[in-house]
Amino acid sequence: MTESRSITVALPDDATLARLSPPPAGVEFVVWTAEDAPLGRSIDLLVLPYMGSTAALPHLADSTVAIVQSQSLGFDGVQQLLPPGIAYCNAIGVHEGPTAELALALILSAQRGLREAAVAQEAGAWEHDSYPGLAGHSVLLIGVGGVGREIEKRLQPFDVAITRMARTAREDERGGILAMSSLHEVLPQAEIVVIAVPLGEETRHLVSGEFLDRMRQGALLVNISRGAVVDTDALVERLESGAVRAALDVTDPEPLPAGHPLWSAPGLVITPHAGGHVQTMPTRIDPVIRDQIVRLQNNLPPANVVIGP
Amino acid sequence: MTESRSITVALPDDATLARLSPPPAGVEFVVWTAEDAPLGRSIDLLVLPYMGSTAALPHLADSTVAIVQSQSLGFDGVQQLLPPGIAYCNAIGVHEGPTAELALALILSAQRGLREAAVAQEAGAWEHDSYPGLAGHSVLLIGVGGVGREIEKRLQPFDVAITRMARTAREDERGGILAMSSLHEVLPQAEIVVIAVPLGEETRHLVSGEFLDRMRQGALLVNISRGAVVDTDALVERLESGAVRAALDVTDPEPLPAGHPLWSAPGLVITPHAGGHVQTMPTRIDPVIRDQIVRLQNNLPPANVVIGP
Repeated sequence: MTESRSITVALPDDATLARLSPPPAGVEFVVWTAEDAPLGRSIDLLVLPYMGSTAALPHLADSTVAIVQSQSLGFDGVQQLLPPGIAYCNAIGVHEGPTAELALALILSAQRGLREAAVAQEAGAWEHDSYPGLAGHSVLLIGVGGVGREIEKRLQPFDVAITRMARTAREDERGGILAMSSLHEVLPQAEIVVIAVPLGEETRHLVSGEFLDRMRQGALLVNISRGAVVDTDALVERLESGAVRAALDVTDPEPLPAGHPLWSAPGLVITPHAGGHVQTMPTRIDPVIRDQIVRLQNNLPPANVVIGP
Repeated sequence: MTESRSITVALPDDATLARLSPPPAGVEFVVWTAEDAPLGRSIDLLVLPYMGSTAALPHLADSTVAIVQSQSLGFDGVQQLLPPGIAYCNAIGVHEGPTAELALALILSAQRGLREAAVAQEAGAWEHDSYPGLAGHSVLLIGVGGVGREIEKRLQPFDVAITRMARTAREDERGGILAMSSLHEVLPQAEIVVIAVPLGEETRHLVSGEFLDRMRQGALLVNISRGAVVDTDALVERLESGAVRAALDVTDPEPLPAGHPLWSAPGLVITPHAGGHVQTMPTRIDPVIRDQIVRLQNNLPPANVVIGP
């Protein structure tokens, strides 16, 4: 046996501690929540809470932390808040499946009238109406990263024609991927447009008024990425006129405040940023944490570093 | 060219007439709705209206009709109402895809909290909650006919473990299918149970109180078949106690009357028998009608005869 390094790991709550206990030999677990600032000790691996984790980042400035493990996939806004010298890792493999699952749920809800059925059920009324359905429709999938690929996989058996688009044109085992430069030519052809790109300077307000105006009359916009990829004001205007429909798991602002015009916009399905939020989620992060511990103890570089150190 | 027979075809409405016009050479189209009884002339092929079609069947007693083409897949109750000497054909290939699509919509709605999200959206409230999700769950699919196979195809990429069950045990290219005789052993293992069997004497109240009591605590029952496959009273009792959850596109009675206890039962998603009801449905029946016309003109037997003549 090679000797492994002794390390200290900060976990975000008692539930995570209970799941991962007892610690492996040479590992000390401590619980540190974002409210417990300052940390007051040297930490090798700090696991952030799942929700609202960016708020915790400035508290790390006065501590000695080597690696921060996020429980999220997206890391927009982290660069500005993360103190220097810390490696920031995202949670690859944890959220892609559940987020793709929710994308399909949103598409099916909009195409089969599930929201209307839920409202009728609340009223105890059997109201038959006709909806577009999904089979035979054309889907434009913008973004073919981890989430985009999982969406594509789940869409395939639904008898849809899928067009894929990414920053640069390329080929993979499932055919060609179009470049974003052809966006405005391709948009008018799609009956369903799915946004699966990370939020960044290039993608902020990618879905602009001009983007929406290129979409077909009554086409469906689906966003499971980040709210700010869509220009909310432009979308509200086109929902109110009936030009497009939308299904959003993410909004800008978020949480969507009471009285926001999106709440009353027609042709819209909203879920409350539930993409990765399933009851199996806690157990899905555990192997990620365990893998980082093994890497640290064996002086291997951490996995999935997306910022720094 | 071989000479083809001259035939008269009765269509259920002007919209269908418009889509299929002009008629092929040797074919006369007439419009006959269920309300126009009696028919008063000899008809070679009569296409029933999509909804409420069984009500029209007794009107055919005083007419000379050779073949009745239904726009539905199920034909429970038809045998008793169909006058003798008429061949009754169902609409194979029209509804399987849309019905399977709705089954996935119902499963995702229940597993991801879409109904709750719709209710929160009505109230303009961002309410984060946690739901089971679909990935990693076990699904028991009862019925591997046309609809069952389409459901299976769409479920496969969702990272679920699918167990299939039919009247008799057999093997196909995707593995083993269990016999219904093993139902009570298999039921306690499934987290999601999908009913995709036709309604008949063997399947009426298949989902009995005993069936429901064999299901896991909190497991999901999905019915996209016919309402009477489920014992409604037994289901209401187990929904109210929280023993099981359910997602129903079909109910018994149907339509579900105002004030029925199912409307207020917890853990339930209801859609109003929308399985095959998509906006593409009219065009999906057209090739079925055209095919029967070609067969009749060429003295070939009609396709998909399920009763008589």
